[in-house]
Amino acid sequence: MEPPASPDNTVTTLLTIFPVFLGRLKQSQLKVRFCTNESQKSRGDLVELLRRHGFDISESEVTAPAPAASLILKERGLRPHLLVQDGVRSEFDPIDTSNPNCVVIADAGESFSYQNMNKAFRVLMELESPVLISLGKGRYYKENSGLMLDVGAYMKALEYACGIEAEVVGKPSPEYFQSALKEMGVEAHEAIMIGDDIVGDIGGAQRCGMRALQVRTGKFRPSDERHPDVKADGYVDNLAEAVDLLLQHADK
Amino acid sequence: MEPPASPDNTVTTLLTIFPVFLGRLKQSQLKVRFCTNESQKSRGDLVELLRRHGFDISESEVTAPAPAASLILKERGLRPHLLVQDGVRSEFDPIDTSNPNCVVIADAGESFSYQNMNKAFRVLMELESPVLISLGKGRYYKENSGLMLDVGAYMKALEYACGIEAEVVGKPSPEYFQSALKEMGVEAHEAIMIGDDIVGDIGGAQRCGMRALQVRTGKFRPSDERHPDVKADGYVDNLAEAVDLLLQHADK
Repeated sequence: MEPPASPDNTVTTLLTIFPVFLGRLKQSQLKVRFCTNESQKSRGDLVELLRRHGFDISESEVTAPAPAASLILKERGLRPHLLVQDGVRSEFDPIDTSNPNCVVIADAGESFSYQNMNKAFRVLMELESPVLISLGKGRYYKENSGLMLDVGAYMKALEYACGIEAEVVGKPSPEYFQSALKEMGVEAHEAIMIGDDIVGDIGGAQRCGMRALQVRTGKFRPSDERHPDVKADGYVDNLAEAVDLLLQHADK
Repeated sequence: MEPPASPDNTVTTLLTIFPVFLGRLKQSQLKVRFCTNESQKSRGDLVELLRRHGFDISESEVTAPAPAASLILKERGLRPHLLVQDGVRSEFDPIDTSNPNCVVIADAGESFSYQNMNKAFRVLMELESPVLISLGKGRYYKENSGLMLDVGAYMKALEYACGIEAEVVGKPSPEYFQSALKEMGVEAHEAIMIGDDIVGDIGGAQRCGMRALQVRTGKFRPSDERHPDVKADGYVDNLAEAVDLLLQHADK
């Protein structure tokens, strides 16, 4: 099996290209938004990281799973047991976590210990109607040390053990793209998604009515252009080409 | 969700009843065999534990997943990466584990760390046609400290991450019951399975042509008698009643 060429992580993919493209987009009349599945860092830490890499970006321009989930928990009066990394915990500071009535899992990395998985499992099994919220459902991503299991694998483990289905907050969930559109104040047919993940980025965006361009970089694989279920509205060799295309489109 | 009344573990269920029933069976003309999904201990340690509890039993009377898997690995020339507890490792001593071309997972308990799961995952991802062998597919079991995730949950995690399906060695796999029958030298229609697990014991045995009695102890739940897919050939309130029934049957 051929591992992906880059991490299962839009942000890290973005870091591999020059921020100048973002600058060109922002100078245009087009609204720009980052839609990521990053669930190890808080939105603040994420933006700080991007800014250090030269991106002109603020927290209000980022849609990330943790703040989205935090909003859902508040709306539904859910008190989560958190199986997440410390770096993202602050996103849940406003939420009551006492006497939990649901479980939220993120890309917890080393925190996916047998002990922590059993803790989360027991919380779910003690509930009449167990609610499991997963921040994305990525299978794996790549780090310098090698391939790493992502939250989706541990979501499947808990789903099977409890006989339940998790609610996914993150790409490719259409609700997640909807929340990003709402934050931008645009309709789906007015928006274009640019991404390298044929299922997570392209398929998810199309399912909620957006058009989507796949970039032939990062996680892109030639076989994506023959994907059985998902066909991108267009392909570009790199982000520069995507930006050119968008700006031409915007001028019309 | 209501946790099970006892562990997902035939052996521990057996330990809750008196060995005298086993004695009565052995004095009859009936052949007796233990068919377990225990995958933390070697067959030797398991028999020693049972004998300490007064069971008149030898290794040759036990069908367990680890030795069954060891046989399969030998037959197919597979060199496993083992994600198992040290207690069961000796079952794989005769097997070459260098340059692995498959992964074997058992109920590894604390060894199901993020690091060990990534190791197993990377071995699978480096294979052209990944082979994952799982010793059983139990969802969870109960220990004094509470509910514990079983191997099935981690099998699902690796299946999802790799996009593959595991080969299960253990109940309810019909091949597993077949190997037990072969070891006893009897045909499926001549054998009766006694167990407390409606799917793992009863459904699995029936799928390979055996009749099966469910004992209303251990993991049994009243809802089992209304199970959508599996109907036992008979129900008994305890193992004593099962033995009576078998001996009457044997006298005919």
